[in-house]
Parts: sequence; structure tokens; C-alpha cells
Amino acid sequence: MDLAPSHIITLMTDFGTSDHYVGIMKGVALNINPQVQIVDITHAIPPQDVHAAALLIDSAYRYFPTGTIHVVVVDPGVGSERRAIVCQTETAYFVCPDNGILTHILRDEERIHTVAVENSAYFLPQVSNTFHGRDIFAPVAAHLSRGEPIGQLGSPIAHPVLLPVSSPQMTDEAVIGHVIWIDSFGNLVTNLSHEILEGLEGRNGVVIRAGTAEIDHLNHSYAESAVGEALAIIDSFNRLEISINQGNAAQTLGLKRGDTITICMP
Amino acid sequence: MDLAPSHIITLMTDFGTSDHYVGIMKGVALNINPQVQIVDITHAIPPQDVHAAALLIDSAYRYFPTGTIHVVVVDPGVGSERRAIVCQTETAYFVCPDNGILTHILRDEERIHTVAVENSAYFLPQVSNTFHGRDIFAPVAAHLSRGEPIGQLGSPIAHPVLLPVSSPQMTDEAVIGHVIWIDSFGNLVTNLSHEILEGLEGRNGVVIRAGTAEIDHLNHSYAESAVGEALAIIDSFNRLEISINQGNAAQTLGLKRGDTITICMP
Amino acid sequence: MDLAPSHIITLMTDFGTSDHYVGIMKGVALNINPQVQIVDITHAIPPQDVHAAALLIDSAYRYFPTGTIHVVVVDPGVGSERRAIVCQTETAYFVCPDNGILTHILRDEERIHTVAVENSAYFLPQVSNTFHGRDIFAPVAAHLSRGEPIGQLGSPIAHPVLLPVSSPQMTDEAVIGHVIWIDSFGNLVTNLSHEILEGLEGRNGVVIRAGTAEIDHLNHSYAESAVGEALAIIDSFNRLEISINQGNAAQTLGLKRGDTITICMP
Repeated sequence: MDLAPSHIITLMTDFGTSDHYVGIMKGVALNINPQVQIVDITHAIPPQDVHAAALLIDSAYRYFPTGTIHVVVVDPGVGSERRAIVCQTETAYFVCPDNGILTHILRDEERIHTVAVENSAYFLPQVSNTFHGRDIFAPVAAHLSRGEPIGQLGSPIAHPVLLPVSSPQMTDEAVIGHVIWIDSFGNLVTNLSHEILEGLEGRNGVVIRAGTAEIDHLNHSYAESAVGEALAIIDSFNRLEISINQGNAAQTLGLKRGDTITICMP
Repeated sequence: MDLAPSHIITLMTDFGTSDHYVGIMKGVALNINPQVQIVDITHAIPPQDVHAAALLIDSAYRYFPTGTIHVVVVDPGVGSERRAIVCQTETAYFVCPDNGILTHILRDEERIHTVAVENSAYFLPQVSNTFHGRDIFAPVAAHLSRGEPIGQLGSPIAHPVLLPVSSPQMTDEAVIGHVIWIDSFGNLVTNLSHEILEGLEGRNGVVIRAGTAEIDHLNHSYAESAVGEALAIIDSFNRLEISINQGNAAQTLGLKRGDTITICMP
Repeated sequence: MDLAPSHIITLMTDFGTSDHYVGIMKGVALNINPQVQIVDITHAIPPQDVHAAALLIDSAYRYFPTGTIHVVVVDPGVGSERRAIVCQTETAYFVCPDNGILTHILRDEERIHTVAVENSAYFLPQVSNTFHGRDIFAPVAAHLSRGEPIGQLGSPIAHPVLLPVSSPQMTDEAVIGHVIWIDSFGNLVTNLSHEILEGLEGRNGVVIRAGTAEIDHLNHSYAESAVGEALAIIDSFNRLEISINQGNAAQTLGLKRGDTITICMP
């Protein structure tokens, strides 16, 4: 399975941008391949929140050029026995700890080749116990971008770690989902897919319950509702989103990640 | 009116950087033109604050190379009937919603060509109702950077939306301006221009009132005042700025955007 | 002393990223050298905190390619008589105010050539009193990246400003260091080096006191401790770090920069 690497490396971490950590990772990568172009996806994953990173990298990677190398580092197990892996799909490379961060991608993609990162020739000469983003993940990504075959990095592994994924519960009277992400606008992203909602089309009296809000239809745009009004809309990743026109739904409705969103069918 | 596009695209949004939204826009642009260089101006425009974005893009675009393509997305009307536009001046391209975000630029520039963005051949194949930054603005900018003429995008429009702009009020005893921006240092940027202050030079007893502070001269540097002292200075965009040496003027003086700054002439 | 400049410019400032300031600096640099690649190290240095910038640039620059040009702007004296300097070491260029921001680098590096930045031919045509990042530092860096020799910028200076640096105090019973940085995870970085701790190896009863925590050994990884437990570890820059596994040590232990960390030897 061949995949020509692009000159693009993306970074997603929980490092924030107030320290020098992310800049240093970029320096390390540029030192190995000065032609690489590095794109930040986000560095504001909540600390140690592997579930959040798994969700966001799955939503993001499809929009990058074929052969892009995605470095995803949310790594509470840094320095312990947890493995580092490189995973190659038909369109992308992923360099990350083996802690479930690729859960959604591994479930969706059919042709996947994963290796354990073992060959220290591709690391920085000194590997610390606390910053593998600098010492292992960035240099490995930069070497990949130069065309180094992933077989050089280590041995294939058959079963990378997967996280449990909660699916919506369906009964005759309701579909029960939950909030899986809250974006910086305060929009509540749910695990209720477009398809579930399409299956309910034409059914009378369907109501979406989100905290104190009861919503009886899907908007086509935020602006269709009055300013400050709670609304439901299919978001840009085909999931049900609860939002407030020009407001912050999470704050106003008092909802947080993991909270229940219910579609009631009387 | 010809203008060779540069390989530089800038981004200004209210998306924040804690989500994957900005990274995805970059992926989309790089997919269309892998040679493009993308520069963030800021993603911390307050949510839906078109006035703020209009101010900052006007201050920023002059410093970029000729032909730079500026993508400015603060877009409360996304998914509604509001138009998307591309505006070409003698030195730059702007890709944005038609909601007044170019107000200052349209007032300042003399030779402007604006088109409505209508040709879906330049969009992503599927256009969502909530994320035109990804589906329309980023791809259109990337196609422009490849030399696509703006006439291909849609029909010319004569009157893009303009926001009302408040000018200082002048009386015999005072010039009344207001705070138009507060930067991350807490400096209070006003709509009182260098020219207004020059017109008052040599006049006795002129005092600048900013909240509880009364200031009777213009500084040449912050450091000229004692640490913690309120001061007035001409900022780097030729506007009156109220500041506190090594302090936060907005917090200390209790002032916010829109508040009055008065130049009193006894 | 020759050093071929790379096409890479890094930026470290206290400007934050919510304003347009950093984007404008990039525009200015790209206008002078469109081939330059600009890397943000961080823009979240606390306002006017020259000590913090001195620490972070010293930790970061070693990881960038030879010839990288580092622009470091934390500049409470902007517009005053303080000098601007360019400092060339054997591997890097630094462009910054002469306020001690290079203290650690100047102490560590042996072959250094420093000039005062005086030649306004390398500045923007109009130099403001408040934004030398745009008007002087970014353009000077971009000209350097094009191969302009630093001798063209101004006259050599022998004694750039140095800040006082506090070293750990050693007695027979204790080594007393302090917290020099708190990262975004809340990890407490100290000025106690790996070497100091190695010197204590094998000694019985050594205890590290950090606020309310007493720690009697060094971890090899965060994950070795229970979640929520305070721990000591050698960080990725060979300094003693006090941390909490999957927690925020600064908040939990109530410690801030400058606070004492003591190694007690009974």
C-alpha cells in the first residue's frame, strides 16, 4: 500500500500555545525537512482528553491533501510503556501515541497499516520522559515527509488501542444522544446523525429536548431564528447541533459535554 | 483592472483556535493550491462582531504584499440569503460575506471591483449551512491564488453593504470620540485621529478625559510615564490611544468599547 | 564569523493573538522576503515580562535549523532610548530590544557578535513610538533572511544588557531553588538542574518540598504516579519539575512563579 507523503504536517495537541512547546516541535521538524509546511489544527484539546482529540482529528483529516502527515499528541502516558504508532490509511499518515486517539479513524477506514514506532534512528538523540512531541513524534513525522517508508520505523501491529464509543439509544418514544463537543461559540455538537433525523421526517410532534429548551423543527440557518433563541440545525459535519442565534447555547442552556439531548416522539 | 494574486492568503475570523475550524480551512485551501502560504491575522474577533473585524482588517491589509488574498469570516448570516463577495482593490483581494466587514476599506479605496460569489464550481462539492469558511471562502481564495479571474466567480455588484461609522463630534469646547478597540494589553484605541490632535497643538489647557483619568499632554513613549500612570499617546495607526505604562488601562480606568473619550478645550 | 541565514524566522512576543499585531509583523516580513517561513514560538509571554521571554527563547532556539532568525519582542521601553540589537551566535540570529531578553543565551554562548540596530534603511519608512515589532524588528529580520550582513545594520556593541539570574542556594541541609515557569498544564518548572539532583543520588532521606507536597523520589513518567498525586520528575530541559499526574500542580499546590522549592537533606 503506497502513499506518497505530502510536504504538509499538521499538529493537534493539548499543549496550548502559551508555552514554547509547539514552536519547538516545529523547529525540530524543520531541522529534519526544511521544506515541510506545518499547519496547526488545534493545541487547545483539554489536557489529557484523548476522547476530544479522537473526535476532532476524525472530523479534520479528510479536508487535507492526500499524503498529509497528522501528528496528534494528547499523551497522558508519555514516558510509560504505552507505544508510539504510525498509522497509514489510503489518504493520510497519523503519528501519535497508541492510546485510542485514532479510534474513529480506525473504525471508519478500511485499509489501514499500523506500525509501532521503535527505531530510535528517527528520534532526537536524547529522548526525555515528558516531551515525546519534540523527541519522537515531530522527528518521525518529518522523516516520513522526506519519503522514509513506514516499514523502517518498526514492526506492524494488528490491534491499536480503541476507545469505547457511545452510540445513541433508540426506543419507540425517543432517541437519546449526548453532547460530544462544545465549540468556542458555545454550540452543542451531538452524536445524533443527520441520518437519524432524516428517518424521523414527516413524523408529527417530534420535539428535541436540550436542557430547558424544547425545539420542534430544524433550522436551515442560524439567522432564521430570532437573536437569542435556541435552535436545532444540522452542522457542517452532518450532526445535530443545538445552538442559539448569536448567543452561547452551552452557557444559556447550562449544558456540558456528556449531557443528554433527547429526540422525543409522542 | 489587473492584479496578480500572490501566494499569500490571510485569515481573520471569529472562530477562535480551540476548535478544528481554522485548521480545516487551511487544509481545504492547501488541497486546491499546495503552494499557498497562509497567515493568521486573528481568530479572536468577538463572536459575530462584524464591526471589530471591519476595523482590524482595515488596519492590517496595508502591510501585506501586493496581491495578498484576505479571507475575513465573521458571518452571523451564514446559510441565509446574505451574499458572499470578492472585492479587488488596487493592491489586494478580499473574500468575505457581504455584511459590511469591508466598510472602512470600501470607503478608503478608490478603485474597487466587487463580485457576488455565485459560481459553485469554486466551492466544495457539498455546501453546509453553518461553515462557509470551509465550503466557500477558503476554496474561493485558493482558486484566486491560482490565478482564477474574479469575473469567473459571479456578477459584479455596485453596492456592497456598508456599516454606519461613527465620527468624533466637535464643538467649541470639546472633541468627543470613543473607544473603538481594546487590545490585549488593555490599551484603549480611539477614533480620534492624529490630525485632530495636531489641530489642537499650541492651544493652552487642553485636557484628555478618559474615565477617571485627566491627561494634559501626549507621550512620546510609554516609558516616559511612571509605571502604573495613565497616559495618552499616538498609536502605531495614527490614532489617540489611552494607555497605562506597564498596566492595563481598560481594567484600571473601567472603560470598554464604545465608551467616550473627550478632549476638553477650556 | 559567517553564518548563512535560513529562510526561517521565529516570533516570540507578549502581543497575544487576539489583535492583528502578529499578523501585521508577518505581512511586513513577507513583503520584504516572500520566501520566508515564519514560525510562532509563543505570543503569550505575560505583558512586559522580559524574564519569561529570556527563559523561553533560551530553551527554544536550540531546536531550530542553523541560521534561523529569532525575533523576540517583549519591549516595555519601546519608543524610549533603549537600543534595538541583532545578536549572532554560531548557530542563530536574534533580533530584539536590548533589555536583557538574551541574558541566558549571552551567558551560554561563547562566540557572539552583537550590533546596535541603527540603519533606518532597513526599517519601515515611518517608525511609530509604540510598535517596533512592525516597524523595526520584523523588517530587520526579513532583510537578514535575504542575506544582508549584520554589519550593515549598525555598530558593534560589547556589552548588551544582562538581567540578574537567581541561582539555587546550597547549604548542608538543603538546596533551595524556585519556580521559574508554570506551563499551561500547571507543571512547575524549577531552576534546580538535573546535575544538582544527580549529586544527591544515593543519599538517604532526601525529600523535595513544594508547597504542601513532600516528595521522596523522582518519577520516570507522569503515569507512574496515581492520578491526582504530586510528583517530581526531570523535565525535557533537564530541570526538576513538580507535577500532578493528569492534574494542575500550580493550582493544587497553590504555587506561583518565584515560590520556593526545597530539596531537604536530613
